[in-house]
Amino acid sequence: MKVLVVFAHPEQRSLNGSLRDVAVRELEAQGHDVQVSDLYAQGWTSAVGRADFPTLPVDARLAPAAASKQAFETGTLTPDVKGEIEKLLWADMLILQFPLWWFSMPAILKGWVDRVFAYGFAYGVGEHSDKRWGDRYGQGKLAGRRAMLIVTAGGWQEHYSARGINGPIDDLLFPIHHGILYYPGYEVLPPFVVYKADKLDEAGFEATAERLRERMRTLATASPIPYRRQNGGDYLIPSMQLRVGLEASEASGFAIHLARAEANIPPGESGAGSSPTDVRAATARVQGLSRQAGRRARD
Amino acid sequence: MKVLVVFAHPEQRSLNGSLRDVAVRELEAQGHDVQVSDLYAQGWTSAVGRADFPTLPVDARLAPAAASKQAFETGTLTPDVKGEIEKLLWADMLILQFPLWWFSMPAILKGWVDRVFAYGFAYGVGEHSDKRWGDRYGQGKLAGRRAMLIVTAGGWQEHYSARGINGPIDDLLFPIHHGILYYPGYEVLPPFVVYKADKLDEAGFEATAERLRERMRTLATASPIPYRRQNGGDYLIPSMQLRVGLEASEASGFAIHLARAEANIPPGESGAGSSPTDVRAATARVQGLSRQAGRRARD
Repeated sequence: MKVLVVFAHPEQRSLNGSLRDVAVRELEAQGHDVQVSDLYAQGWTSAVGRADFPTLPVDARLAPAAASKQAFETGTLTPDVKGEIEKLLWADMLILQFPLWWFSMPAILKGWVDRVFAYGFAYGVGEHSDKRWGDRYGQGKLAGRRAMLIVTAGGWQEHYSARGINGPIDDLLFPIHHGILYYPGYEVLPPFVVYKADKLDEAGFEATAERLRERMRTLATASPIPYRRQNGGDYLIPSMQLRVGLEASEASGFAIHLARAEANIPPGESGAGSSPTDVRAATARVQGLSRQAGRRARD
Repeated sequence: MKVLVVFAHPEQRSLNGSLRDVAVRELEAQGHDVQVSDLYAQGWTSAVGRADFPTLPVDARLAPAAASKQAFETGTLTPDVKGEIEKLLWADMLILQFPLWWFSMPAILKGWVDRVFAYGFAYGVGEHSDKRWGDRYGQGKLAGRRAMLIVTAGGWQEHYSARGINGPIDDLLFPIHHGILYYPGYEVLPPFVVYKADKLDEAGFEATAERLRERMRTLATASPIPYRRQNGGDYLIPSMQLRVGLEASEASGFAIHLARAEANIPPGESGAGSSPTDVRAATARVQGLSRQAGRRARD
């Protein structure tokens, strides 16, 4: 596979830097081609502004979506943005790696999304009418590719659990998983999350590294988070609301956009006597399995 | 009141620029003092990096939280960051205004948060032990102040509703409301959201402006979103998990962090024969009321 890692930490000698090196080495050992966009090292510009649209007349009003559309269609996006788009079209697999700052991406990575995910490329793709609301959420220019996050968090796993005060990590990451990655077509793998990142000792790092290597070995085979396709019949058009009754009985909030899990759990992983469950449980199970692998490595 | 508006749009002649002017004029007409941090106009730097910590030795490893702590304590943060901290300490009310890009803030505003919300100022405040997990989520250096968002979105309101494909707007904004604003102590008012922002005609703009003016007239009296205080007894320490049984029976995900609504609905707004409902319903009702005000203005 061709893998693009977009890396967003200002320090090479950080936990994030070390984990990136672990991931890249494992990917290369598996024979994959790897490119890294190291945003800080590249001096990446974060803020969308007039400089993004050099052909926009000086006194014209800047409407970012319209300017983005025009620049993408005419090939006049800036070289740094074009370079990232080329990498995205090259890669079968996209990894975004970042520390969780204020429950989201660092600004520099948000600015990579804001600038690179151009109109006509990552949104505004396909027919938009009362019958069809574009090619998005499972379709789009990046369909057929996979993506995943590598995230470090200072807090405890419990603080990001279903009842944790920070909110469940799956919900905190939903705007990225579903809104940024699934939107233009990526299949999104469960995230790799490191908790208590500032407290990791050497043994903890080794266990984490092994858990990460295992995830890098299963990129092609891991089950993606089974978000529902916009154009697969589950949503009313044009209100884009989920048809009533499709979700698991206990699901609400973001979780209703997950298809039920039965069909998505790989054979042998569903456990004896499993009853229909929503996919949040399945995802938790998949993550639990990889955590178990990590624990085994530590033993 | 003293009101700080942090404005994050690259074009003054945008809908956002016009709405900011409407808000500021109304606030001034009410006798409030207003400052605006216009991030694009200020040339705000988005990315946290070494330049944020001028006293960090050149060859020292940059650990952002530790460097932030050290710089805040020694008064060596950069002048732009210090200036914003002073404005935050000046203001009784903080308004963040932005277009929703990729279901979150534009990078420049995320960079304002990443850089200005320093360790010791917005996080890392108070005792951290197995008995007390700091002063946060309802306590902290910004407690006693209020905050709210003014947000424009291109999509339809239905797309951001409870069953909408984008996810409920309250959940999409939770990482900002709860994770960024409530965390250092702000009471957070329901957001002012404009949908179909790119399609707004003149009559639509006037109705929206009137709805916004009404919100600006009720900043001091509007009921905040009733998030639970971390140190109010609802959470176990140190696991920081919500005690079982406190949430409304149908609540899950982010919604469990809202206290029940009965006590929070202003008298006269709860309707005849109202039964205990969760606060999501109460919030929807408050927003509905202000939308009705908007509709009346349009009629």
